[in-house]
Amino acid sequence: MYNNETKPRIVIIGAGFAGLAAARTFKNAPVEVAVIDRTNHHLFQPLLYQVATAALSPADITAPIRYLLRKQKNTRVLLGEVTGIDTVQKTVTLEEGSMTIPFDYLLVATGTRHSYFGKDEWEMLAPGLKSLSDAVEIRRRFLTAFEEAEKTTDPDEQQELMTFVIVGGGPTGVELAGVLPEIARRSLRRDFRRIDTNKTRVILVEAGPRILAAFPERLSQLAAKDLKKIGTEVRTKEAVIGITPTQVTLQSGEVIRTRTVIWAAGNVASPLGKMLGAPTDRAGRVLVEPDLTVPGNPFIYVAGDLAITKNAEGKPNPAVAQTAIQGGKCAAVNILHRLYQEDTKPFSYFDKGNMAVIGRNKAVVDLSPWKLPGFGGFLAWCAWLFIHILYLVGFRNRLSVLMQWAYAYLTYQRGARLITELDREQSLPITTA
Amino acid sequence: MYNNETKPRIVIIGAGFAGLAAARTFKNAPVEVAVIDRTNHHLFQPLLYQVATAALSPADITAPIRYLLRKQKNTRVLLGEVTGIDTVQKTVTLEEGSMTIPFDYLLVATGTRHSYFGKDEWEMLAPGLKSLSDAVEIRRRFLTAFEEAEKTTDPDEQQELMTFVIVGGGPTGVELAGVLPEIARRSLRRDFRRIDTNKTRVILVEAGPRILAAFPERLSQLAAKDLKKIGTEVRTKEAVIGITPTQVTLQSGEVIRTRTVIWAAGNVASPLGKMLGAPTDRAGRVLVEPDLTVPGNPFIYVAGDLAITKNAEGKPNPAVAQTAIQGGKCAAVNILHRLYQEDTKPFSYFDKGNMAVIGRNKAVVDLSPWKLPGFGGFLAWCAWLFIHILYLVGFRNRLSVLMQWAYAYLTYQRGARLITELDREQSLPITTA
Repeated sequence: MYNNETKPRIVIIGAGFAGLAAARTFKNAPVEVAVIDRTNHHLFQPLLYQVATAALSPADITAPIRYLLRKQKNTRVLLGEVTGIDTVQKTVTLEEGSMTIPFDYLLVATGTRHSYFGKDEWEMLAPGLKSLSDAVEIRRRFLTAFEEAEKTTDPDEQQELMTFVIVGGGPTGVELAGVLPEIARRSLRRDFRRIDTNKTRVILVEAGPRILAAFPERLSQLAAKDLKKIGTEVRTKEAVIGITPTQVTLQSGEVIRTRTVIWAAGNVASPLGKMLGAPTDRAGRVLVEPDLTVPGNPFIYVAGDLAITKNAEGKPNPAVAQTAIQGGKCAAVNILHRLYQEDTKPFSYFDKGNMAVIGRNKAVVDLSPWKLPGFGGFLAWCAWLFIHILYLVGFRNRLSVLMQWAYAYLTYQRGARLITELDREQSLPITTA
Repeated sequence: MYNNETKPRIVIIGAGFAGLAAARTFKNAPVEVAVIDRTNHHLFQPLLYQVATAALSPADITAPIRYLLRKQKNTRVLLGEVTGIDTVQKTVTLEEGSMTIPFDYLLVATGTRHSYFGKDEWEMLAPGLKSLSDAVEIRRRFLTAFEEAEKTTDPDEQQELMTFVIVGGGPTGVELAGVLPEIARRSLRRDFRRIDTNKTRVILVEAGPRILAAFPERLSQLAAKDLKKIGTEVRTKEAVIGITPTQVTLQSGEVIRTRTVIWAAGNVASPLGKMLGAPTDRAGRVLVEPDLTVPGNPFIYVAGDLAITKNAEGKPNPAVAQTAIQGGKCAAVNILHRLYQEDTKPFSYFDKGNMAVIGRNKAVVDLSPWKLPGFGGFLAWCAWLFIHILYLVGFRNRLSVLMQWAYAYLTYQRGARLITELDREQSLPITTA
């Protein structure tokens, strides 16, 4: 049992950007902090698409949570799945009751998963990209598609296998759609004998009128133009109405024959949000008070993608890493304010701008919060690279990632083209002698 | 269907050391080669223990088979599981008949798995270390053991979780036993709050009279001494007679309470060996002719760990990478001899010596084939490092591995301490809004 009689006990669920930022804010504070996560690592989600496209290894974009918080003596890290939150008794339950952890203050920062808008059966056919497992599964599917295409002699089947549909034109969809054609036409071209990987089709489908809807319209157009140059087909104002193992049907009636669909369209909140007894939006995200507490319970905070926060004009803040980092920090500071019997401060998101990368040397950078014109092209890509390496947690990862990018950039090769036995869900039967 | 009317068709099953060496020997030869493997990558098995101990990422010790053979225009690579071999019709069947590949010459080089000597129920309790999936599973178990120890307050349970038993004192067992204490006492020490990782026990159990039995006795003793210095307990002349989820029972009656057992004891041949209708030994390895053909069938060759070959004195050659590389090459050369209607040559293993690494700066090097005295210590470790980097396939991996070793060596940190959601076999339930 976690117990400490003297110091206030703070429990943080989730060690993503929000949870980690909050934990770090408590450094040297006279509190006992417990950080609970389902995995042992913090994930640098903005580079997850690089794992999905075999450029980086899972370990390159992760760092053990314990390692990141090792110098913070008031903080414990627990690997476990939270299965219950008692907001009255103020306890958190792990693994169906095997462990109960009391808290004085709780921060829930467990984020979102992808949502299939009621079409749960699509999940098996079109995996999303939120966790490391997702990324490894997408990597397996797209690498295996080329392997299968090489095995068959039926040209229709080959084309079907070499067609990739990405649903959702947000940053994740654009990032994937910008990398896949390059891999097919450059990295893989010489490795196959029977198929011509130049025939690979990558189709990005967006239901709204334009891709990167959060960006200014000019940058959306620039990104669409850059994607087309790379060879990606962009379909806007096109909703997906059907997915089967061999095809995708669009609202316009177009049928795309494909074996690989990637879902980058919608989000749904972690189920922990519902356990707080707080009002939520349609996607299950918690409608928090301005100081990030749950309405009616000043001891429970929510931050990161799981919380809906609004800016001064009443517009929701974007679900990006910066919002989570600032939100986690704000929640922690407000807990400290409360401990010192001071007033809490409302969360105010400081928007530093936004960027999305397109293929191997293009990006778009939105600087509208600074009232500056955004820009695209190679310079934007350099800015993207600089910022992402800067923010990537931990010295080792930064250096290793930089090296592998340099390698991939110069040689057009991908370092992590791995289909393991585990992935293929078959292993050699063991017979004993 | 794989077909070519004019050139001899050579099929190689397995792209380990033997299969890859054979495929490369056919470069520029007027033949059609098909290489079939269950995974898409060649695995540098001598460094697998580094993945199991979180020093390297899976991608660091692998390279896509297609990439390694991309310049060889006469060679195709197929991802698939061989489920049948017809030695009379001369065909290989993939995935239960979905594809049939005819051959003129066949090389089977699918290696071995670990054997539990009839105790198949031990497999779940004591995973072995042969494939990448094995390595990731062992990594998950030993990292999770510390996480669980941190969660409990029962000191007996903590000690049980922090006790690791390695069964088998060959090179793999010694390598694992040499690294685990270092990780516990150095890398993880500051990361935990409740447990003292210095209390970690690592016990190496060997049934024979000494560890590293293939080495000269002096080097075995040196290795045992070095292991003890690191803190590993070495038990020789001790067979394991029982394994349960919480303890290991030795023949002497000693009961070791532990939650993590790693199996490095016995090998059993790939089941493909039995499909050849050839005589096999108790472990299922094929008793090949001196020229590596299957007795009575000059069109089928076996090389690598799956074949038993003997040296001039009639002693079996060791199951190491060098034997596989030389055997694969010999089989390929013999196939070419046959094509040119020349006599085949008997396989003669050229023993370059043997080495095993012990912890972070010790190793033993056996040079008895050269009639030279073997040596241990730091110099031996440097030799081990040099040879392994030299042999590690592909420029990128070599550089990346070297960097990560340097990092691990200087900081005592492990880069790949990863427990993923997939590993934990639970994922957040998806609920749609």
